[in-house]
Amino acid sequence: MTAMRGVLSPVLTPFRADLSVDAALLAAQCRWLQHHDVGAAIFGTNSEGNSLSAGERIDTLEELVAAGIDPARLMPGTGACAIDDAVAMTRACLRAGAAGVLVLPPFYYKNVGDEGLFAYFSEVVQRVGDRRLRMYLYHIPPVSQVPLGLALIERLRARYGETIAGVKDSGGQWVHTAALIERFAAHDFSVFAGSENFLLRTLRAGGAGCISATANVNPGAIAALCRDWQAPDADARQQRLDQVRAIFSRFPMIAAMKSAVAQATGIADWARVRPPLEALDPAQESALRAAMAEAGFSMSIHYPQGES
Amino acid sequence: MTAMRGVLSPVLTPFRADLSVDAALLAAQCRWLQHHDVGAAIFGTNSEGNSLSAGERIDTLEELVAAGIDPARLMPGTGACAIDDAVAMTRACLRAGAAGVLVLPPFYYKNVGDEGLFAYFSEVVQRVGDRRLRMYLYHIPPVSQVPLGLALIERLRARYGETIAGVKDSGGQWVHTAALIERFAAHDFSVFAGSENFLLRTLRAGGAGCISATANVNPGAIAALCRDWQAPDADARQQRLDQVRAIFSRFPMIAAMKSAVAQATGIADWARVRPPLEALDPAQESALRAAMAEAGFSMSIHYPQGES
Repeated sequence: MTAMRGVLSPVLTPFRADLSVDAALLAAQCRWLQHHDVGAAIFGTNSEGNSLSAGERIDTLEELVAAGIDPARLMPGTGACAIDDAVAMTRACLRAGAAGVLVLPPFYYKNVGDEGLFAYFSEVVQRVGDRRLRMYLYHIPPVSQVPLGLALIERLRARYGETIAGVKDSGGQWVHTAALIERFAAHDFSVFAGSENFLLRTLRAGGAGCISATANVNPGAIAALCRDWQAPDADARQQRLDQVRAIFSRFPMIAAMKSAVAQATGIADWARVRPPLEALDPAQESALRAAMAEAGFSMSIHYPQGES
Repeated sequence: MTAMRGVLSPVLTPFRADLSVDAALLAAQCRWLQHHDVGAAIFGTNSEGNSLSAGERIDTLEELVAAGIDPARLMPGTGACAIDDAVAMTRACLRAGAAGVLVLPPFYYKNVGDEGLFAYFSEVVQRVGDRRLRMYLYHIPPVSQVPLGLALIERLRARYGETIAGVKDSGGQWVHTAALIERFAAHDFSVFAGSENFLLRTLRAGGAGCISATANVNPGAIAALCRDWQAPDADARQQRLDQVRAIFSRFPMIAAMKSAVAQATGIADWARVRPPLEALDPAQESALRAAMAEAGFSMSIHYPQGES
């Protein structure tokens, strides 16, 4: 089995008025993303994945697969502070046929050692006990505050082989992504940039692609550059991706992307977030529309009839 | 109903070899603590509470109450990143008759605003929907990285009255604890210091007591000072508490306290921690024994026959 590659989106999660997950609407969005050749890293940071209980994530995953979402492009987030939760969610992913899982370190305790992190990931791998498991490690120290260093990855890879299939680097430091690629990428180990800002550099260095927030709002262009990264206009296209990201990064990003998707679909529910996040206020919404117009960036999403 | 006061321990959680919770042993420990007039803030930070799933916490709580632990001195930790988990655990606490719950803010997302935190706690209070609820807010920015400021507490208190019954301040800054007491303590709102280092100052200023790690290993002396805080030798006794704390704070504290309890009870299982934490290594264990001996601090725990 080959490790996953390409572009994935930490798919935004739509909530109804009572804050429950609207799995049908999420399925429609995943299908729209997959139509653009973008995989679905559901339950990621931008998905508000950790604001969903393990049970909610399992139920939602099952509804997505029942709705026909291709599990070959699914990489659900199954990280949790409690081993039991991570194991339950990872098992559900294997049952559903998901190609991989994206696993945060346990993120409550800070300044934990590699020995403890190794033991945590070992428990998850061993309790799941399934050779089909493909685990992608999720390095996002700005949010989790628990980094996953190269020595830890090497040790996990040495112990569990192809089960440890890759890493998503959301640390925002190119030098770290480059070091990961240099050390691991030659061995069917997928290094994903955590932002499309680094997509071209990642691919040129031998990385696998990116799992990036703005793949929620700009999937076609990001996926196209990932395919055409050797094209003569690749640098100009990267620049354009960066311009689009810059629009959204001026706002609380998850709320801003949801606001844009709400507008693009005409479905107001999309703008809703779960606490502790906050939706954009009207002034921010206006500023976002203005910034999109100024940058010449517009979105339109049409779900096939009967969906959403 | 009056807000809780006194000394509580974030009770260490004993794990079997397969890392499952040994609820019978935990019950024995809670009973030993209650014998010393120390309440049981189970599932706190020192309990590795966030390393337990919501289901594990609910099951364990029910076993404790079935084993006869007095719910009038129980303040379980029910905080979680997902509202559903916090609600399920809080409801279980009310079913079990627990006098209060200690609630962390959702701790995955950082730099969230008061509006989002207010919405989070509001959802929990409203979904639980039980006038018996007494919620203690858990301010522990060194670990959670999500502080709970005075303005937020004031707003929650104004909206939900005596339901918002107090706060545990584990920020480690006396000036903050003092500000909490000054602003809130006159109105049947319990301000607990997060360390017994601040016990005497907290009580003299009008606070409610402390919820402190080392109440796991030194419960009698801490609870006695809480009762006798106006005694002439109170300052000397506070100094002695500080000396005992200093022994443990030279080591990873949870592992060190578990090691000490393992020795004091003769039950080796007590030394076990859940990943990502690590047990003391043999050199650290020796150093801990030496430090305890040097400070003249010894522990002995005898559970009544048939317990543990």
